[in-house]
Amino acid sequence: MKAAVFYKPHEPLRVEDVETPKIGEEDLLVRVDGCGVCSTDLHYIEGIPTVKKPPLILGHEVSGKVAEVGRNVDDFSEGDEVLLPVLSTCGKCYYCRSGMDNQCINMKMLGNHIDGGFAEYVAFPAKDTLHLPKGIPVREACILADAVAVAYSALRRRASIKAGETLAVYGCGGLGLNFVQMGKAFGATVIAIDINEKKLELAKKLGADETINASEQDPVKEIRRISGMGVDVAAEVIGKPQTIKNAFESVKPAGRVLVVGFTPENLPINAGRLMFREISVHGALGCPKSEYIQIFELLMRGKISLEPLISHRYSLDEINTAFEKLKNGEILGRAIIIP
Amino acid sequence: MKAAVFYKPHEPLRVEDVETPKIGEEDLLVRVDGCGVCSTDLHYIEGIPTVKKPPLILGHEVSGKVAEVGRNVDDFSEGDEVLLPVLSTCGKCYYCRSGMDNQCINMKMLGNHIDGGFAEYVAFPAKDTLHLPKGIPVREACILADAVAVAYSALRRRASIKAGETLAVYGCGGLGLNFVQMGKAFGATVIAIDINEKKLELAKKLGADETINASEQDPVKEIRRISGMGVDVAAEVIGKPQTIKNAFESVKPAGRVLVVGFTPENLPINAGRLMFREISVHGALGCPKSEYIQIFELLMRGKISLEPLISHRYSLDEINTAFEKLKNGEILGRAIIIP
Amino acid sequence: MKAAVFYKPHEPLRVEDVETPKIGEEDLLVRVDGCGVCSTDLHYIEGIPTVKKPPLILGHEVSGKVAEVGRNVDDFSEGDEVLLPVLSTCGKCYYCRSGMDNQCINMKMLGNHIDGGFAEYVAFPAKDTLHLPKGIPVREACILADAVAVAYSALRRRASIKAGETLAVYGCGGLGLNFVQMGKAFGATVIAIDINEKKLELAKKLGADETINASEQDPVKEIRRISGMGVDVAAEVIGKPQTIKNAFESVKPAGRVLVVGFTPENLPINAGRLMFREISVHGALGCPKSEYIQIFELLMRGKISLEPLISHRYSLDEINTAFEKLKNGEILGRAIIIP
Amino acid sequence: MKAAVFYKPHEPLRVEDVETPKIGEEDLLVRVDGCGVCSTDLHYIEGIPTVKKPPLILGHEVSGKVAEVGRNVDDFSEGDEVLLPVLSTCGKCYYCRSGMDNQCINMKMLGNHIDGGFAEYVAFPAKDTLHLPKGIPVREACILADAVAVAYSALRRRASIKAGETLAVYGCGGLGLNFVQMGKAFGATVIAIDINEKKLELAKKLGADETINASEQDPVKEIRRISGMGVDVAAEVIGKPQTIKNAFESVKPAGRVLVVGFTPENLPINAGRLMFREISVHGALGCPKSEYIQIFELLMRGKISLEPLISHRYSLDEINTAFEKLKNGEILGRAIIIP
Repeated sequence: MKAAVFYKPHEPLRVEDVETPKIGEEDLLVRVDGCGVCSTDLHYIEGIPTVKKPPLILGHEVSGKVAEVGRNVDDFSEGDEVLLPVLSTCGKCYYCRSGMDNQCINMKMLGNHIDGGFAEYVAFPAKDTLHLPKGIPVREACILADAVAVAYSALRRRASIKAGETLAVYGCGGLGLNFVQMGKAFGATVIAIDINEKKLELAKKLGADETINASEQDPVKEIRRISGMGVDVAAEVIGKPQTIKNAFESVKPAGRVLVVGFTPENLPINAGRLMFREISVHGALGCPKSEYIQIFELLMRGKISLEPLISHRYSLDEINTAFEKLKNGEILGRAIIIP
Repeated sequence: MKAAVFYKPHEPLRVEDVETPKIGEEDLLVRVDGCGVCSTDLHYIEGIPTVKKPPLILGHEVSGKVAEVGRNVDDFSEGDEVLLPVLSTCGKCYYCRSGMDNQCINMKMLGNHIDGGFAEYVAFPAKDTLHLPKGIPVREACILADAVAVAYSALRRRASIKAGETLAVYGCGGLGLNFVQMGKAFGATVIAIDINEKKLELAKKLGADETINASEQDPVKEIRRISGMGVDVAAEVIGKPQTIKNAFESVKPAGRVLVVGFTPENLPINAGRLMFREISVHGALGCPKSEYIQIFELLMRGKISLEPLISHRYSLDEINTAFEKLKNGEILGRAIIIP
Repeated sequence: MKAAVFYKPHEPLRVEDVETPKIGEEDLLVRVDGCGVCSTDLHYIEGIPTVKKPPLILGHEVSGKVAEVGRNVDDFSEGDEVLLPVLSTCGKCYYCRSGMDNQCINMKMLGNHIDGGFAEYVAFPAKDTLHLPKGIPVREACILADAVAVAYSALRRRASIKAGETLAVYGCGGLGLNFVQMGKAFGATVIAIDINEKKLELAKKLGADETINASEQDPVKEIRRISGMGVDVAAEVIGKPQTIKNAFESVKPAGRVLVVGFTPENLPINAGRLMFREISVHGALGCPKSEYIQIFELLMRGKISLEPLISHRYSLDEINTAFEKLKNGEILGRAIIIP
Repeated sequence: MKAAVFYKPHEPLRVEDVETPKIGEEDLLVRVDGCGVCSTDLHYIEGIPTVKKPPLILGHEVSGKVAEVGRNVDDFSEGDEVLLPVLSTCGKCYYCRSGMDNQCINMKMLGNHIDGGFAEYVAFPAKDTLHLPKGIPVREACILADAVAVAYSALRRRASIKAGETLAVYGCGGLGLNFVQMGKAFGATVIAIDINEKKLELAKKLGADETINASEQDPVKEIRRISGMGVDVAAEVIGKPQTIKNAFESVKPAGRVLVVGFTPENLPINAGRLMFREISVHGALGCPKSEYIQIFELLMRGKISLEPLISHRYSLDEINTAFEKLKNGEILGRAIIIP
């Protein structure tokens, strides 16, 4: 099969013929219809190490059709449309048993521990695979796996956001925009912050009630002008100390800060203010498999949409262009690869 | 002032001149702009006793403008637009201190313990009065006090509904329709059930994803056809044993049933099924004052609306017509009195 | 192997030689050290149908040592001490993925869907089996599987009980006594209710702060005398309409009622009171596997104990005596079978 | 009356005759029986500014008997035993209405905004005053106001700790020891950490399951040895960056960190680890008035105790000795002033 293989940091992926994966008795072979291009993939290309040493096929947002069914699998058939939810999990650890399989201590992540979706085929355990309901477009569905799901899970599970509360989203990239439209789905008043006017326009289309261009205005002051005491929830979806600081300073007493973007730095958060104002800071990563059912429902009922979020579609051969554009901030929303 | 006075069950209210209320040092006198006509008022007229013996002025959904300010009150001025949130509370009991002042053990309810809003003026403690934000129409705002607020609070506080969950609403009267539009604001998939096709049409307009005419279809079967295992939350907003039973049978394992409608009967709910399926049944009444801020936000951001819910406007002189129509099921949404 | 086989309702179990179970590649064969005698077993003997038609080996509270390890199992060895947590689960359904595998839609219950623990050996999937930590006595541990676990899970997961809250426990049988000692572990003030003075004495020893003999006093009145407004949580652990009614009337506004005992009747609960007082009624069944880790911790740290709860130990040959005594209310706490 | 007046940082308090406070119509005059000596008072003496400029009477943990009753107060009588819960609150702001009056935006703190309890008498609003139940010793009760209450509220409201979970307490001073005994009351396994062996011994007496002397062992390693993956909850009750870092590194994935001690520094917490492990960091301050009822219950039922926590009793004249000892770490538990 054809695949884009990651050999070495700081080098383009090599699109080449590799062996089609063999599947085990409990697995599925999936013909990939779409695979999202995520900044996590870019981090690997730029030097953050993957768990499995290269050569490795990257890509963890995968949707497609079942091409082959493992001998012991009885709830999938050839041709079934499926979503692969980033991780395969052990099903037995404390986190798997607690409804937090996104923290499985034996997790295997597509495109990190095992070969991912920038390829024609991918192998994955059937027990971790999700049937795509009728009516969801199989190609575009790939971004449900991560970009959409992380936003849903962070807002629901980590921030417990409620209708009528206020949400500030710092960063309107492919993930941040999902926080915008998902915040709207939850009934929150959404304030989107970025320094790129085009991203803010897209945020507006996706339902932001207010936008702030942080290159023109102090976002913390502006948020306080809009919200009075500060917002209920602020999500940082970039991974920069300064924006984490801003997010922290944007919330009202008893407010909640979501740390979603990755940075290896310390939190630039004043301990005294955290204590006096009883603020909560929550890390957020991934999405338990139990929550995809609600995400599908939101999509099928038109409460979120995929189309406006997918700005670019590339073939496998064009994959390095996709990463180039992502690096340069030229992707509005998300690019997907169609192998 | 002019008021509609309730003298005796089963008799029309008498519209007559009564003394304008005198206010205490901590109170406000409010010139009523709108007062919602609720089936609770009808219950009193039909014989359910009020706490204060008649003669009594009914009406507990009141909005208006401050006409006079008690001597010790410093956060209201003449002319301020206000909402009276059904209850005055003691501020000291366990429930007031716990954020559940809707269960205040010393509560006084407008139009039940004290004179209500079917009158030109009403007196109310300033500390329990809410400033109406700019941009909310003062007249129509009256229905925020109860019909809108109950739906918000029941779904948020009692059912903890989340975006992507499914909600069945049994009964699309003035209160039930608010559960429909509020369910939508929370991001739920809403299934509206009634036996009146016109009410179902209005439910559809207010955002119901599905409607079921229970005079034509078995609602429980139909809900299972739509939702698979059953809905996450079912709200009974009528007050009939049969519909409570239906609501109970509509939820999936670990589902939640909201009992909002009043009936003096026992719950027709099978204890064994409740236990085996770990279902929760929650009573719901009123709305803590802390939640009105979120309700105002939803309205100002266009996530809920008042206009489609107010089907009839009457003067004080027409109040008995309003109750007549309510009794006959001819009110789609809510009637308000404009004294 | 020797086993007590259930052939027909209303007949004694027959202790006889049967074939030792063969295990599959993912299973364990467990040499039973102890198996609790539960009133659920008695219900089957008295005519409530089991899922698998008899002949069937009953018994769902099983602890023991691994005697044989399935070919694909790598986290158990012969001789390991284990607890079988009542159910084997599919690991894939919505409930398994949500941390509620006690509601698994494909559950198989020991002694109901499959052969249970009133036998020398039992076969069980390794993925559902729990390692018993050192220091827990393997024989007595059997009652952790259900009687102890149900109390923990109901109080934590269904009632969210907190230290300093008040708990009324209706019924001090083998399960009810666990609610007493578990309520104490959670820091609640525990009021134990029964009509058997000996059971109340044992409740006192297990930490009940107050006891009420319901054959001598009106428990609802007495609870209100002790608690003022009523208790925060009332658990019914018998399965009788009258005690469910009492439990309901024992809670204060916004209180929570746990329905744990089984009855096929309707809830004798006034819908109006439930609504006006915003009471919640929660069914409770079993315990998710994720919670056993905390239960083990409580036992190892001496916050709960097993010894006082196990009043009788019988060999397999004496099993019909055990059920006879259980039926006659002569078991204080729990009997276990030591095969 | 006699009072210890704070005139200037870095100077001893002056014990002198001052005018007895006059009370308003809604207030109580309380004859002080006991007033706890808290490190917050010491902070003021050492230069952290109070809200009301000195001269000021410090002391915010006050219990006593009602000496005079304001004209409009009807639920207190002369001689009633009372606890003053640190803050008077407005009763109207978002936080007061939400059951979080500890975050009241108009709060007035005894010994900070207004004169406190290092005096024979103190004036306080009746609506914020709590009746002490019979059986609680009025003198020692003073430490319920803050040291006991903060521990209860932080563990319940901010950490949602549950029986069987594990809790690490960093710092066993007057407040930290309350986290130890309160953690035990909640059914948690408590690991107490300090560098003072005597404090650890007292922690042991108050119910710590394990103690770690951090001057001899690496507490993070030792906690992982004891708990495996890390603790569920870690509370920092000192206010030092290094111990906050240790607390953070002590929790398992999805664990919760309580920041209770004050420091003006930033959190020394790695943002990437917080995100990947989905850790939550919660500031905690004070206690809503609604929770004192549960704290009283815990004390009356013997689940917590005051006596072992009060190591020193001083008269007003000895107050500067008390602060001297507190500064030198010579107070095990808490000193109280008996004016």
